[in-house]
Formats: sequence, structure tokens, C-alpha cells
Amino acid sequence: MDVTVNAAMSADGKLSSRRREQIAISGDADFERMYRLRAAVDAVLVGVGTVLADNPSLRSHDEAHRAEVYGPDADPPARVVADSACRTPPDADILAGEPDTYVLTSGAAPEDRRAALREAGAELIVTDGDRVSLSTAFAELAARGIDRLMVEGGGELIFSLFEAGLVDSLSVYIGDLVIGGRDAPTLADGEGFVADFPELELDEVERLDEGVVLYWEVV
Amino acid sequence: MDVTVNAAMSADGKLSSRRREQIAISGDADFERMYRLRAAVDAVLVGVGTVLADNPSLRSHDEAHRAEVYGPDADPPARVVADSACRTPPDADILAGEPDTYVLTSGAAPEDRRAALREAGAELIVTDGDRVSLSTAFAELAARGIDRLMVEGGGELIFSLFEAGLVDSLSVYIGDLVIGGRDAPTLADGEGFVADFPELELDEVERLDEGVVLYWEVV
Repeated sequence: MDVTVNAAMSADGKLSSRRREQIAISGDADFERMYRLRAAVDAVLVGVGTVLADNPSLRSHDEAHRAEVYGPDADPPARVVADSACRTPPDADILAGEPDTYVLTSGAAPEDRRAALREAGAELIVTDGDRVSLSTAFAELAARGIDRLMVEGGGELIFSLFEAGLVDSLSVYIGDLVIGGRDAPTLADGEGFVADFPELELDEVERLDEGVVLYWEVV
Repeated sequence: MDVTVNAAMSADGKLSSRRREQIAISGDADFERMYRLRAAVDAVLVGVGTVLADNPSLRSHDEAHRAEVYGPDADPPARVVADSACRTPPDADILAGEPDTYVLTSGAAPEDRRAALREAGAELIVTDGDRVSLSTAFAELAARGIDRLMVEGGGELIFSLFEAGLVDSLSVYIGDLVIGGRDAPTLADGEGFVADFPELELDEVERLDEGVVLYWEVV
């Protein structure tokens, strides 16, 4: 499976403020770029923290462009949440309507919450242990025909994916503002590395809106 | 006074790992760029956290280039530490030898620590209150002939300077690695902004070493 991470951060590397409210970091051209990326993948993945903070629908807002690129009958990308404890609210927008939503979860998720998500229409992929095994869950997604996956955050999930060696490429829009904050979410949070840092290779630099997009390949 | 911030961060916005050890983020070309920047200013400023973590000397390592740019008799830039409580160790490298070192501190700094720093050769600039007033201290530096100041970190100081509206420009080298870590230091830490985020304008994008330098002006 090809896994690409796409995110927008401030000039100082923050995805949001310490209050975790959504902040306009990029502009129209970067949103258009994100919709093109979504149109080119089989599924879009976010972490449960992003679901709880932003309640994204992850439904394509660019049907016309999608039809243009893939033809009028192309399916929108499936939606996926990484959610070890099934904390996704059953009425979350990510579960509403089409397309399918997968919840990647663990054996530690309470059975009643699993049942509530199934009732809300989610397909659960459960891996052993207290936290979801992203590599096992990705193999399950691949078995369901998902070959290209885009990750839209947040920072905890992105770190976990780098830690598991599952990221192939990273595109980052860097915006024209400073957010600051030692407790503000960053592009890669989690425990962090202290050695053997994942190495990148800078593929392309593109000025866009009032900022710049860096396209990195993971070495 | 013209204040420019210069720093190197990982692709995910970290200055270091959660252990605060120095990590090679940039390469030779970026170090050369930093030395050129140092040669073009009257003083170089760091926060006490950086002094405690890295023990930098901030002495010019590029005398030849300095002489080339400013003539053989040019003075090296003065060294400045922002240190509200005088926590700089008297045997820190930043106090050793030439050029002069200023310690910007507050009325809350214990008298014995102030005396120890003075004995070690530092010139203290003391402002009222529990924390150093950077704007007052900068006016004192300007009165001593410092017109151009470069700030080399860390993230706590950089945030304080943005908060006080004292930054004119920001150059950031972005390196080809992921550090991660919700507790790792970032380019701008502190409390963080939740509204009225400082706005930047992207002046120039330069590919350098294995990464890229973004040159921002503060609006």
C-alpha cells in the first residue's frame, strides 16, 4: 500500500493552537491541492483525536474534479479512522452518509462502543493488543482493495505511522503565520524519536497561496 | 533595532528531540549561511535554555569570512543571553573570552548569581519585574550601539519575542528528517497564541544542503 501524509502547518510547525481549534493555515489553492490528492487515493485516514477536535466529514467536496480525473463513475475515497478505544462518537460526521468508513481499533475497545459504531454504519477492523496495530490494519485495508492511502493527521497518528515505518511520502504546506505553544499539536507528536530519525528526501518545493509546499519522500 | 530570528528545524518543526540533545538538522552550507548572518549583525542572542542545553560559545568560527565582508578590523558580534533568573553558569562558554557578553535579566534574579556573572565578565542589563522585559532590554542594547540583532533560539525565547512584537524577520532551515515528540522543543514554544497570530510574508525560498530555507518577513 502506498501511504502519503498530507498536512498544513504554521511556519513554526503547528497544526493548530493549544486549544486545538481549527485555524486557517492555507488558502484556496492548497484546499484544491488536497481535493486533488483525495481524488487520487482509495482512502483517507485520520486519527480519532482529529475526529474529536474537528469532526471532519472527509467527504469529497470536489465531485466535478473527481469526475474529470477518474471519469463520472469513480468512487469517492473510503474514510478511515485510527481509534484504538472506539472513542469516535456514533453521530460523528465521518460516519454519516457515503462513502464507507472503516474504524481501525484494538481488542481493548469496549464491546458496547464497538457495537454502537457498527450500528452507525462503520466497518471495524480489530487488531490484537491494547493499541491498534497499524501495519496489521493496513494489510486488512489492502485486502479490501485499498492500495493508495492519504493520511490527513493529526500529529499523534502521523508519529505512530512514522514509528511503524508505514509512510512513503509526506507533503506539507507551510503557512504564513506563527502559532507557537509548547502544548500546541505539531506535525508529528507522540513520544518522539531520540535516535534513528526517519530520513526524508526533498522531492519538490512549490510556492502556493501565501506559503510553500514541501514534497518529501521517505528514504 | 532590526531583529532577525534564524533557526534550523526538522520537517515536523522541532529544534531538537525531547531529550534536548543537539541534532544535526542542517549541513555545511547552512552553517556557512549562519556564519554569514552572524557576520552581518552587531549581536547574537540566545535564551538561557539554549545555554543550559547546548553550552554554545557564540564566538565567530569564520574570522576569515568576517574579515572579507567587513574588513580585517571588524569586531565580532557581541553575545547576549536572555536569562530572567541569572541561571547561566558562570563557567558557561558564552561568557568565556571575547567578545562581550550581555545578560538580560530581571529584578527577580538573586543578587549572588548576578554578582557571579559580573565576576565572570558579563555585563548585566536588569529590567523591573519577575521576568526580563525584552523591549526595555533591547532599548538598552540599542543605546550601546547594537542596531542589528540575530536570535538563534530556543523556542521559548523566540515565542517571547513574537509575543512582544520584536521580530522583524525569520529565516528557517527545514531539514530532511522527522524528530517527532509532543514534548520536543519547537521553533516557537511558550504559551502559544490562540488568536491574533503574528503574520508573515514569504520573501524567498532557497534549496540548501538536503533541505530548504524559508525567509519570512514579519508583517
